[in-house]
Amino acid sequence: MRDAEMYIPTYDDMLAAHERIKPHIRRTPIRTSCHLNELAGAELFFKCENFQEPGAFKVRGAANAVFGLDEEKARKGVATHSSGNHASCLSYAAMLRGIPCNVVMPRTAPQAKKDTVRRYGGNITECAPSTSSREATFARVQAETGGDFVHPYNDPRVIAGQGTCSREFMEQTDGLDIVVAPIGGGGMISGTCLTLSTLAPETKVIAAEPEQADDACRSFRAGHIIADDAPKTIADGLLVPLKDLTWHFVSSHVSEIFTASEDEIIDAMKLTWKHLRVVMEPSSAVPLATILKHPGAFRGKRVGVIVTGGNVDLDKLPWIQ
Amino acid sequence: MRDAEMYIPTYDDMLAAHERIKPHIRRTPIRTSCHLNELAGAELFFKCENFQEPGAFKVRGAANAVFGLDEEKARKGVATHSSGNHASCLSYAAMLRGIPCNVVMPRTAPQAKKDTVRRYGGNITECAPSTSSREATFARVQAETGGDFVHPYNDPRVIAGQGTCSREFMEQTDGLDIVVAPIGGGGMISGTCLTLSTLAPETKVIAAEPEQADDACRSFRAGHIIADDAPKTIADGLLVPLKDLTWHFVSSHVSEIFTASEDEIIDAMKLTWKHLRVVMEPSSAVPLATILKHPGAFRGKRVGVIVTGGNVDLDKLPWIQ
Repeated sequence: MRDAEMYIPTYDDMLAAHERIKPHIRRTPIRTSCHLNELAGAELFFKCENFQEPGAFKVRGAANAVFGLDEEKARKGVATHSSGNHASCLSYAAMLRGIPCNVVMPRTAPQAKKDTVRRYGGNITECAPSTSSREATFARVQAETGGDFVHPYNDPRVIAGQGTCSREFMEQTDGLDIVVAPIGGGGMISGTCLTLSTLAPETKVIAAEPEQADDACRSFRAGHIIADDAPKTIADGLLVPLKDLTWHFVSSHVSEIFTASEDEIIDAMKLTWKHLRVVMEPSSAVPLATILKHPGAFRGKRVGVIVTGGNVDLDKLPWIQ
Repeated sequence: MRDAEMYIPTYDDMLAAHERIKPHIRRTPIRTSCHLNELAGAELFFKCENFQEPGAFKVRGAANAVFGLDEEKARKGVATHSSGNHASCLSYAAMLRGIPCNVVMPRTAPQAKKDTVRRYGGNITECAPSTSSREATFARVQAETGGDFVHPYNDPRVIAGQGTCSREFMEQTDGLDIVVAPIGGGGMISGTCLTLSTLAPETKVIAAEPEQADDACRSFRAGHIIADDAPKTIADGLLVPLKDLTWHFVSSHVSEIFTASEDEIIDAMKLTWKHLRVVMEPSSAVPLATILKHPGAFRGKRVGVIVTGGNVDLDKLPWIQ
């Protein structure tokens, strides 16, 4: 059903998104480290989306959806289900516009995530930690509030918003041979494909995924979406499966999907904290883990890495037992 | 003896230093956080000197000393005694110029510090962990190598170099009401005073110090240098005492010295990691600790904070037991 009516966002949608969200997001800086360059045998540029105010790139897509609503729709606000960065970023964007944001979240979600959503004025409705409870609860909330549903990634407004990151990245670096980003549901990778396929078609897009949640990699090789059965990885931003819209971009413009083990992800995370002096979450370390694991694919290249988020439980760091 | 011949670096020395070191250092970015602004009741700007390649502002003074040597002196290299950021930053600057750097370091210094100095090509001579052994060993090394002694802070070239940070800071922020930096030996504070007393005399300079190593604060109140007897604080970059040159700047241009307890420093450090997503060392968190402790002095102001360094043992974080 969805496929037939699927709207594929365009390069012009990305440009419009950028104009729309610029006053509300940060043009995040690039970090480099000579030491990491030596380790990788490549020139690495890290785009610090963890430096967005709510700590993740997802504020781009969320702000594009929120600020693109007409006045009548905006009054009813937005709604989503998420226990991660999308929930806090959508709440943040809604707060900036002064409209309601309703979030359905499993009652088992970490208290810190709930606190962040509430700090940004989001209304949380808790559900049981199951897909059926989430869907039933979300349907009820949406019916009651009339809020516009903003999917965490399978939404053309969200993908167009995420695509603005690569546009800044190319401007800030004077061009890149490869851009690497983590892949979960595929929102950031899709936005990256959307932008670069027009702006810099010679720049390769490579996705990085945890071995223990490698559904995108297996889908890519099989040529159709394969969902994981309850994947488990420290990179908890990457647990969700591809959907029709993101699959469209992944299947048509991604060059390669590399994977890394849990230990490799943790090592890469610690390396970035130590040498970039930047707090990034485990998901954001997957690209560097794959770069160090597959040096042949990156050697001598100018490689852009999207640091997707920096929301970490500082009391439970994976290299400290 | 020293006082009589003391050369006080000037604003022009700072401008010359900036031209000299610009190709070798980073113009570090500014980080802000709406959440920290709310907590502080002030507009905070964090200048990320921890993003210098060797992870600390001390590369500014070190590079000024190294690149200011004439060819003949440069051939003999530089020498210092330090177990902290000055040792690695001086080694780094010497490596960039391709000249020797000899460092005297207590054999009890952490292995990670020794590794960093060696990674940048520094030659380490170990001494016993006492002042007498350090002085005797350093005298021998300097006699053997003829290397130019670059003191960690009580050196006009070093202070002029550190002063370049505030010049960038004022340009990047369009002005500040107050600049706060940590104080140990006083090199960064002196450079800040040197620059701002000419460039922005209306901008107050406030120093921040650990309660448990409050010799600068007590000196400031007494009107003469008082050295601590074996201070002990988590802010291990701030253990050293003021010297004649830095005392000159502290006594003539610092507005106030505030102190914070160990717990307040640790809380501030964690807050910055969480909300700025920046890895800073304990010393660099002392300014925010004092800002949150003395809100009346900062309320409603535009406050610049110099994040002095980001070299932390990630395996031993002070909030994780």
